[in-house]
Amino acid sequence: MLEKPIITLTTDFGLKDPFAGLMKGIILGLNPNAEIIDITHNIQRHNIFEASQVIAMSYKYFPPATIHVVVVDPGVGGERRPILVTTENCFFIGPDNGIFSSIYEKFNPDYYKVIHLTSSHYFLPMSGSTFHGRDIFAPVAAQLSKGIEYHKFGERIDDYEKIPLPKITLTDNNTLAGAIVSIDNFGNAISNITKDDLAKLSTEVSKDKFRITFNNNDLSIADYYAEAKGAGLSAVINSFGHLELFVYKDSAADKFGIKTGDSVVLSLK
Amino acid sequence: MLEKPIITLTTDFGLKDPFAGLMKGIILGLNPNAEIIDITHNIQRHNIFEASQVIAMSYKYFPPATIHVVVVDPGVGGERRPILVTTENCFFIGPDNGIFSSIYEKFNPDYYKVIHLTSSHYFLPMSGSTFHGRDIFAPVAAQLSKGIEYHKFGERIDDYEKIPLPKITLTDNNTLAGAIVSIDNFGNAISNITKDDLAKLSTEVSKDKFRITFNNNDLSIADYYAEAKGAGLSAVINSFGHLELFVYKDSAADKFGIKTGDSVVLSLK
Amino acid sequence: MLEKPIITLTTDFGLKDPFAGLMKGIILGLNPNAEIIDITHNIQRHNIFEASQVIAMSYKYFPPATIHVVVVDPGVGGERRPILVTTENCFFIGPDNGIFSSIYEKFNPDYYKVIHLTSSHYFLPMSGSTFHGRDIFAPVAAQLSKGIEYHKFGERIDDYEKIPLPKITLTDNNTLAGAIVSIDNFGNAISNITKDDLAKLSTEVSKDKFRITFNNNDLSIADYYAEAKGAGLSAVINSFGHLELFVYKDSAADKFGIKTGDSVVLSLK
Repeated sequence: MLEKPIITLTTDFGLKDPFAGLMKGIILGLNPNAEIIDITHNIQRHNIFEASQVIAMSYKYFPPATIHVVVVDPGVGGERRPILVTTENCFFIGPDNGIFSSIYEKFNPDYYKVIHLTSSHYFLPMSGSTFHGRDIFAPVAAQLSKGIEYHKFGERIDDYEKIPLPKITLTDNNTLAGAIVSIDNFGNAISNITKDDLAKLSTEVSKDKFRITFNNNDLSIADYYAEAKGAGLSAVINSFGHLELFVYKDSAADKFGIKTGDSVVLSLK
Repeated sequence: MLEKPIITLTTDFGLKDPFAGLMKGIILGLNPNAEIIDITHNIQRHNIFEASQVIAMSYKYFPPATIHVVVVDPGVGGERRPILVTTENCFFIGPDNGIFSSIYEKFNPDYYKVIHLTSSHYFLPMSGSTFHGRDIFAPVAAQLSKGIEYHKFGERIDDYEKIPLPKITLTDNNTLAGAIVSIDNFGNAISNITKDDLAKLSTEVSKDKFRITFNNNDLSIADYYAEAKGAGLSAVINSFGHLELFVYKDSAADKFGIKTGDSVVLSLK
Repeated sequence: MLEKPIITLTTDFGLKDPFAGLMKGIILGLNPNAEIIDITHNIQRHNIFEASQVIAMSYKYFPPATIHVVVVDPGVGGERRPILVTTENCFFIGPDNGIFSSIYEKFNPDYYKVIHLTSSHYFLPMSGSTFHGRDIFAPVAAQLSKGIEYHKFGERIDDYEKIPLPKITLTDNNTLAGAIVSIDNFGNAISNITKDDLAKLSTEVSKDKFRITFNNNDLSIADYYAEAKGAGLSAVINSFGHLELFVYKDSAADKFGIKTGDSVVLSLK
């Protein structure tokens, strides 16, 4: 393990309560060398899909062996299992409620394992039933960061939960349809259509070859935000490789009432 | 002192202004090895009671020798004294305005000391009158984390401030009444009734033996949130050992108009 | 360079999206010894002036050699240049859109240099056009914190951008006018009039010698907040050396409708 292992936190705890801070207290008590990074604690309450999207777009910007703890957990204390997902590069820890669905899609099934966390001697001794973030996920992350091998934490399972994710549908060779999957702090609307999807329609991925249709409007693709100054609703391939709808220096979501789930169509001109 | 001493921050500064960041700058300038953890900066403006509750529920999840800095400080710069509270396990630093009232209750008075911070050579030289978090509490925490002994920072006092805290009242041998003391990010309403209070009514602490009354409604006690699916307002002993009112996957506070101070009654069936 | 170099972050990213967390992942991947401190991520969307004020009031509370990354960047990906500002004490990294205007005013031009960041081999290889915080500013900050010399990152420029900042105007020898430049979390309204400006009117800086006029009301200057209990709108020289309008335990901004840009007049009695 690394000299300064990194543990990230992604939760719906918000920033008013001390919950995220307590997870950090537990982690540093077990491994004072851990470096803890907040990805966000403002996932919408109980929104497993949103957490799934956020961790899938985030994990690859962290160093190898990073441990990602993700907690949106309405089923805490009940039948849903606590799990650890190991991949070639990094680890994910959280509830088995589908929160890692987008992660499973990104890895070849041969290269990840899902472990049901059953070795309760690694949990907080006074473990309760409403806060597994503090009582199970934080101590397991800390122990893993100290070099305890993943298989010591429990048994491998194959029937882990997945939630349905919005798909790209290819209407014909010239057209594909996707959906808005998140709205960011700037009111930009990010779709699930990626650079790779563009390449499915044309070997030459040049913005002039494509038409974006949203709500019966044709949008042009800009190279960067400021290029669309005064142009109203526009599109850009963002720095995560996703097609994104935006208004220069304004909120596209507010101005055009864009919501998660809205359809976006990409076609060859 | 520890190789990587931990300093926590609990304030009502919010997260828009740079105030919490500046405290960290001062601390790391004096002790680059300090590890700083935010408990919260979103205590309600000037709410000393809320800060008192949050630090009392939080401190025991941090490693021994942790230094907790708590700043909700409307009296800053005036007559209220800056103080340091030493206990067997950890330290608390902040204004003497009752903010540590819940802490004093948790320790045997023989095992804690309250020090009036008067050794101003440990303060920031350019110390002003509106931001003791940066000018007094942060540098004192940093110096303490470097191993300066607590009695070097000032003189012991016994007339430190306390604010009234809601009490549990035992109506008869079968009934006790408490109050809601906080509402969390999920709209769960946490009371001051604890597992230990249940044991006062019955030697056998089984959920079937108790009745919870809130606003003339009888609530049943669930073992975990999901057990109360579809059951409306319910109760659970949460992972802090407190009786908590909740609605599964919804906000109990919003749905039932629950506020801090509301009465909760526990009785033997 | 320091054993534990400090990198601060000031952005308008908000705390819902993972953007600030991703910058930290990139930084720690390049320099695991960096210590990252959030100044704020809640600068108002696209508000370059606000970011400029916040970093100017904050930088001097951090240890020497601290690297301050400031990202409010509506022009990202377009013609605006990414820059590094070196001073005797510390570094600033961000877009060349005037965000460092208040910093330029604080240093003698002989003692700072502005470098246009052109050495793209220090950028993230997969660099896109919408998130230079992650792709350019974070990796450059990390490399700088490892001891790469500033001139390796690009070429010195002299035509860097500045935005107009509100000035103090001396009406006569007895009167000067300034403006509210920010409102803090407590609703306190901070002006650009400083302790030094008071000294321009009188060699003896005693609060009894001055009159503050705001919206046709005369305000008295308190030594600390609690001194103005029951006094309504009052003034204080705050811990940053600025004249600040406040209401004891209440929001001056809300109660008196104070906004950024409002005029404040200081005169000799």
